[in-house]
Amino acid sequence: MRAAVLHRGQILVRDDVEDPTPGLGQVLVEVKACGICGSDLHFAEHGGDMLALGKQIEGMPSLGGGGDEVDLDRDVYMGHEFAAEVLDVGPDTEAAAPVGSLVTSMPVLLGMDGIHPIVYSNTVKGGYGERMLLSAPMLLEVPNGLPAQHAALTEPMAVGLHAVNKARLEQGEGAIVLGCGPVGLAVIAALAVRGVGPIVAADFSPARRRLAEHMGATDIVDPREETGWQAWSRAGNGRAPVVFEAIGVPGILDDILRCAPAQSRVVVVGVCMEHDTINPFFGISKELNIQFCLGYDPMEFAGSLRSIAEGEIDVAPMITAEIDLDGVPQAFADLGDPDEHCKILVIP
Amino acid sequence: MRAAVLHRGQILVRDDVEDPTPGLGQVLVEVKACGICGSDLHFAEHGGDMLALGKQIEGMPSLGGGGDEVDLDRDVYMGHEFAAEVLDVGPDTEAAAPVGSLVTSMPVLLGMDGIHPIVYSNTVKGGYGERMLLSAPMLLEVPNGLPAQHAALTEPMAVGLHAVNKARLEQGEGAIVLGCGPVGLAVIAALAVRGVGPIVAADFSPARRRLAEHMGATDIVDPREETGWQAWSRAGNGRAPVVFEAIGVPGILDDILRCAPAQSRVVVVGVCMEHDTINPFFGISKELNIQFCLGYDPMEFAGSLRSIAEGEIDVAPMITAEIDLDGVPQAFADLGDPDEHCKILVIP
Repeated sequence: MRAAVLHRGQILVRDDVEDPTPGLGQVLVEVKACGICGSDLHFAEHGGDMLALGKQIEGMPSLGGGGDEVDLDRDVYMGHEFAAEVLDVGPDTEAAAPVGSLVTSMPVLLGMDGIHPIVYSNTVKGGYGERMLLSAPMLLEVPNGLPAQHAALTEPMAVGLHAVNKARLEQGEGAIVLGCGPVGLAVIAALAVRGVGPIVAADFSPARRRLAEHMGATDIVDPREETGWQAWSRAGNGRAPVVFEAIGVPGILDDILRCAPAQSRVVVVGVCMEHDTINPFFGISKELNIQFCLGYDPMEFAGSLRSIAEGEIDVAPMITAEIDLDGVPQAFADLGDPDEHCKILVIP
Repeated sequence: MRAAVLHRGQILVRDDVEDPTPGLGQVLVEVKACGICGSDLHFAEHGGDMLALGKQIEGMPSLGGGGDEVDLDRDVYMGHEFAAEVLDVGPDTEAAAPVGSLVTSMPVLLGMDGIHPIVYSNTVKGGYGERMLLSAPMLLEVPNGLPAQHAALTEPMAVGLHAVNKARLEQGEGAIVLGCGPVGLAVIAALAVRGVGPIVAADFSPARRRLAEHMGATDIVDPREETGWQAWSRAGNGRAPVVFEAIGVPGILDDILRCAPAQSRVVVVGVCMEHDTINPFFGISKELNIQFCLGYDPMEFAGSLRSIAEGEIDVAPMITAEIDLDGVPQAFADLGDPDEHCKILVIP
């Protein structure tokens, strides 16, 4: 089958990738749409650093195959934001959705040999290919005739929902969202569904600011003209906001510690993969709280699909291009420009 | 009157300090005991850096005189951990404790010109002198015949109580306390009063480890032999701990992010006044939470005095020396050795 793979830092399109075969508890699916995630761009460029950093971490929960080694000198399969059609079911397996149905799933493959994240792998195929395996009990059938393109946004929107859940928002609290890329937009959408207000959103890109408004932000600013903090002073009625960091580059966290109102909570949902310098004293003197976030749980993933399918969240304007597998190398290059693109979907 | 002051980085003892006069809402007190705080040592050495860092911070609550400028080229009064006897009451003022009584108070001086922290000031006298002013409505009479030396520990022990309150501990949760200086010991004491267990405590100093045990730590380790994380693996029954950072030097926070079990909460009560480098990815991949802490509220301050006076917390072993004003310069030098000293009290 055909698939776009990462090979020594380059995205290549292969015609001769081995077709996967479903085992016990697995289904074979045909990928209908798969979003390109910013973390995939980062992994393509800095995969070695990311793997080295991951190895330093202690105290991670044991996830069986979660510790799968990735060899960057071999082809790496990626693509974890997918919607797909069920083609076949493994032996002695009951699937949560019938053959022929459109499904999505958390990007985790259960196998007899452990639990494998579908994210970066030399063996487990992802959504940047024609076919892949999913876990039979984890399938979620896409309801309401929702197109595969929109269902593929379930995963990134679940990231926002999870971050909002981790924020422990109380009645009457508002939010500042710094950065309106796909992650920031997902946060804004989840805040809006929950009825949170005001939602101050800040981004340098006019296109992203328009999307922030579409997703439900109430006060959208260009930081060159008015910072998110200034907008909060104007709109926040003197309350301490919950601040969502959805930028993920070095320096942002220290800037937040320096500028956030006293007693604020900061939810870090942007993924900064580099060393970062902070002044703890800024956080101490205002008693700030930092909540780091990652991923989502199965209920949040299902809730994200439901919100999209019920029309609570309109993801259509986030999709700025649809490409085939041959377009993946160029798409990885194009996504660097925030004013050109938000979410590019691969239609294998 | 006599007072030890900070003058251009040196601790000097002055014989000719102007005696303070109580204004409306103030009382004059005679200092009976005043603890030397680690933050005073740091301010004596790095006062310029600390003042510069403070000026960068935005979003601080307005505290009237809280923004008092400190001129390091003039004498600076310090000493915020005090017990004192009420000598005189200002005009038209009703004090919360009678003349002749032993009192303590939060280190804040209310005046007609605003609210002044009693911490570092060119004008507001602190506890390293014979006499000082306190706020008449904020006096707490020392009960149960508690000696002034023990009452002077109210303030540092309140810091620990506040940190424990900020930790939002739930039934059945335990704690790791990294660093057993006065702040770490105050945290351990507050945890023990609340019945939290296990309490893992780690410090390189044998003397501090003995104090940690006295304060109620259940598993006390020398990190050269067993880390706090290893002790938690042994004692924590597989739960995620609340981690108290009571060391306050660069590098500790990143080490905690790297080593703490997934989903841990980290309470930063050590005051790191320098730039610090962290890897946000460590915190992200384990969804850690960081709560920065500072100070205490009036209820916590009163609760701290009550715990000491009722014998719930025995602070006596923390007091490793009592000195007079002439001994203050040497005491600032001596406090660098953690195995020699914990809390030195100035008896002016």
